[in-house]
Amino acid sequence: MDGGSLSVQEFLGRLPFFEGLSSTGMKIITRSVTQRFFQKGALVQDIIEKGAPREGFHVVVNGTVKLLCVAQNGGEKVIRALGPGDSFGEEKLFLDKIDTLVTTQATSHVFLLHVSRDSVLAVLQRDPAFAMRMLSHISSRVYLLLKDIEAYTLKSATQRVVDYFLKNAEREEGNQYRFTTNKSLIASLLNITPEHFSRIMRELAAEQLILIDGRAVTIPDPERLRTYDS
Amino acid sequence: MDGGSLSVQEFLGRLPFFEGLSSTGMKIITRSVTQRFFQKGALVQDIIEKGAPREGFHVVVNGTVKLLCVAQNGGEKVIRALGPGDSFGEEKLFLDKIDTLVTTQATSHVFLLHVSRDSVLAVLQRDPAFAMRMLSHISSRVYLLLKDIEAYTLKSATQRVVDYFLKNAEREEGNQYRFTTNKSLIASLLNITPEHFSRIMRELAAEQLILIDGRAVTIPDPERLRTYDS
Repeated sequence: MDGGSLSVQEFLGRLPFFEGLSSTGMKIITRSVTQRFFQKGALVQDIIEKGAPREGFHVVVNGTVKLLCVAQNGGEKVIRALGPGDSFGEEKLFLDKIDTLVTTQATSHVFLLHVSRDSVLAVLQRDPAFAMRMLSHISSRVYLLLKDIEAYTLKSATQRVVDYFLKNAEREEGNQYRFTTNKSLIASLLNITPEHFSRIMRELAAEQLILIDGRAVTIPDPERLRTYDS
Repeated sequence: MDGGSLSVQEFLGRLPFFEGLSSTGMKIITRSVTQRFFQKGALVQDIIEKGAPREGFHVVVNGTVKLLCVAQNGGEKVIRALGPGDSFGEEKLFLDKIDTLVTTQATSHVFLLHVSRDSVLAVLQRDPAFAMRMLSHISSRVYLLLKDIEAYTLKSATQRVVDYFLKNAEREEGNQYRFTTNKSLIASLLNITPEHFSRIMRELAAEQLILIDGRAVTIPDPERLRTYDS
C-alpha cells in the first residue's frame, strides 16, 4: 500500500458498510480489489480489462477527487469533493442502467482501490447484516443530496458559505478552517460563482466574523457566525 | 380497500421492491400494514400509537401528496409530487438518526398504507433478493436527486419547463400534458417562481412549441421543443 502502514483489508475494514464483515466476506472483497493510480486532472473510470468493462466502486487511499455534473454547454457543477477514506460509485452497483450523470475527476494525483461489483453482490447474498449496512449507507447519500437541494433552493449564498466554514472548522482545534483546495471548487460545491464566494468572504471578514490569514480562516465566535444572515 | 378492487397484498405486490416476494415474506409485510386517511393540507406523519412512534414508510393508494423542504423563513421547496402507487420514506427505515428534513403534506384527500419498519427489516433478514431490490430502489432515488441538482444548477428555467412537459406528455396519447395540479406546485418542483413559470409558458406558446387549451397542453412537435433553448 503506497507508503501507508495499513493493508488493503485493514483499509477497507474502516468503511462503515464493511465494518464487522466476516473474515470470509472480507476475503471475497479483498481478492477482487485492484489498485489504481490517476494523474491530476484525469477522469476516473471503471477499469477496462481485455475489452470488458469491470464494474465496481472506488475508495480513495491518497489524494482527492471531485464528483461533478457537466452541462451540454460545458458548464460544471461539483457535487462532492472526496479525500482519503471516502468511497464513490456504490449506487451504480445496484442499478441495471448505469447513468453517466456524474463524472469523477482527480483533483490531485490519486491512488484508489477498485472493489468489484461481483464481490459485493456475492457477499450481499450471504450476509443480511452487510445488506442492512449498505442500505443505511445508500440511504444516507439520499439525505446528503436532499440537504444539498435544500441549501441550493432555500438558503442564501451567504448562509451556504457560513455553513461550509462552520461544518469544516468545528472538527479542527481553535475553530479554524484551512483551504486545502482551490476556491472555485468550493464555490461550485456551494453553487455560487468564485467571485461571489470571494465577495462573501470579504464581507464576513469586514464584520470580523472570520479572520483570514493566508489559507487559514479562523472563526472567533461560531455562534455569532451561525446566526448571521439567518 | 377504499373502492378499489385490489387487496392490500395485490397493491403492495406492485411496488418494484416487493415484486417476487415469497408468500411468507408478503404475509409478514401485509400483517403490519395500517390504513390511514389524511385530509387535504394535513401533514403526513408516522403513526403514534399509545404514545410510541411507529416507524415505517407510506404508499399512496388514492390522492396526492407533496414532499417538501421548509426554510426557516417559511419558504418552501417541493422535492417531489406523488400519486397512487408511489411510496415515500423508505430511506428512513435504514437510518438511525431520523432527520426531519422533508415534510410530507396531503395535496388532496389522501388514502395511504403504512408499512412498519419492523416487518421490512424482518423480511430483509431472510431474503437477500429483497435486499438487492431495496438497494436498487434506494439507489435510483440517489440518481433522481442527482438529476434534480443537475437541472437546478446547470439547466436554464426554460430547459427545465421543456423537460417537464416532454417527460409528462410522452406517456399520453397525442403528446398531451394535462394539468392535474396547480402551477405553483410545478413551479416549485422546477425551482422557479409561479410568475416565471407562466412567462415561460406564454413564450413557448408564442413560438407555437406548445398549444394551450384550458388545462391541456399539446406538444405538436416534440423534437422541435426538445432542441429549443439548448
